[in-house]
Amino acid sequence: MRNIALTVAYDGTNYHGWQCQPNVITIQQVVQQAIERILDHDVKIYAGGRTDTGVHAMGQVINFFTNKAIELRDLGRGLNSILPRDIRIHDACEADPTFHARYSAKAKTYVYCILNRPFASPFLERYVWHIRHSLDVPAMGEAAKDIVGKLDFSAFKKKDEVYKTAVREVMRAGVKKKGDVIYVFVEAQGFLRYMVRTIVGTLVLVGSGRISVPEFSSIRASKEREKAGPTAPAKGLFLRRIRY
Amino acid sequence: MRNIALTVAYDGTNYHGWQCQPNVITIQQVVQQAIERILDHDVKIYAGGRTDTGVHAMGQVINFFTNKAIELRDLGRGLNSILPRDIRIHDACEADPTFHARYSAKAKTYVYCILNRPFASPFLERYVWHIRHSLDVPAMGEAAKDIVGKLDFSAFKKKDEVYKTAVREVMRAGVKKKGDVIYVFVEAQGFLRYMVRTIVGTLVLVGSGRISVPEFSSIRASKEREKAGPTAPAKGLFLRRIRY
Repeated sequence: MRNIALTVAYDGTNYHGWQCQPNVITIQQVVQQAIERILDHDVKIYAGGRTDTGVHAMGQVINFFTNKAIELRDLGRGLNSILPRDIRIHDACEADPTFHARYSAKAKTYVYCILNRPFASPFLERYVWHIRHSLDVPAMGEAAKDIVGKLDFSAFKKKDEVYKTAVREVMRAGVKKKGDVIYVFVEAQGFLRYMVRTIVGTLVLVGSGRISVPEFSSIRASKEREKAGPTAPAKGLFLRRIRY
Repeated sequence: MRNIALTVAYDGTNYHGWQCQPNVITIQQVVQQAIERILDHDVKIYAGGRTDTGVHAMGQVINFFTNKAIELRDLGRGLNSILPRDIRIHDACEADPTFHARYSAKAKTYVYCILNRPFASPFLERYVWHIRHSLDVPAMGEAAKDIVGKLDFSAFKKKDEVYKTAVREVMRAGVKKKGDVIYVFVEAQGFLRYMVRTIVGTLVLVGSGRISVPEFSSIRASKEREKAGPTAPAKGLFLRRIRY
């Protein structure tokens, strides 16, 4: 049995997230059907990250098992020839039999993009949160340091979402500006649902001068979702990379 | 009478080019209707460059006359609030009464984007020509030097398009690679239809090793469209900037 790993990039705009759900189109479903069509047998695919509706991926990683002798190159090309253009296979490789795209992951990096200038961009419309007033990037970067560590992220989770524990380990977090785009990146072993987007929504309050850096830290420490900022729109979020 | 100039950016994917035409949607028509709706009178708008179907603009410049007392800031905001999201006003200013977006232009810069790597991008799909095999960028840059000057560009025009003269003055031309994207830029006072796209199609033959740099020069000198390469797809072309 071969265990095949693929790196997948997609524009999430037109999909109801990664994971299969009844009655709506998801990326998993489209990718799975394409693989099954090429291999001519059913497959179960595992993914490194389950992105929400409208969230994009540059480096989603998936794996599945097959006993077909197809060349990796032909598999990648074949998939790209039948997949819609907003989903692309970037890489295909043979993985160790024990490799599991989700459970073998050491860390995942998400990047959130904010277009920070008075006027929107017709080209970035689907990929950024447009904020007109100038944000204080150094202050946002300072606040972002507070989320690094093994911490309880209850303040930054989806309302009503229940977890055994809301403790997650963030290895790296930061804020950078390049041209008119502000990038907020968070690397962690695991994430709560809406965690990055709620962190970004709250960092934007810091950047707007509406809360201070110490206030950001107290919000995180309070574990109360009500104290945090709004959930940033899905369209600015990218699953950037998964580290194994 | 006020002469107002606007800088406009647009994603040309969904339009039949800039210029008004019967029975199809063009950018000029959409922008003009939006201005007329805000000013509540008919306007005639002049544009710096008439982009073809599917071609984009980062820095299209237009002008029109009005005697309404609207503030420039309110005009820009008002237009952006009613325009579709693939057309954005980036700037509005009062122009000299003699200013004409087309006739006052000293030079226009077009940029053509080629994604040069084995796999396509779901995010750049509408903005690049995807070429899988690796292109020789220095050779393309060398060939591009040949088009600088006051020259006859008959070899690089749209088939069957008739001009009094096919002589145009190119001030600057070059080829740069940044990451996986190759940018071909051409600055000229005026362009023939399809000129940049045919130059790019022929430069790609150079980059693929199918013709040499001297052969590129002889094609240009031959003035025969049949000798040049294919017209590159519209989607990779951007009207970058107009200099006044």
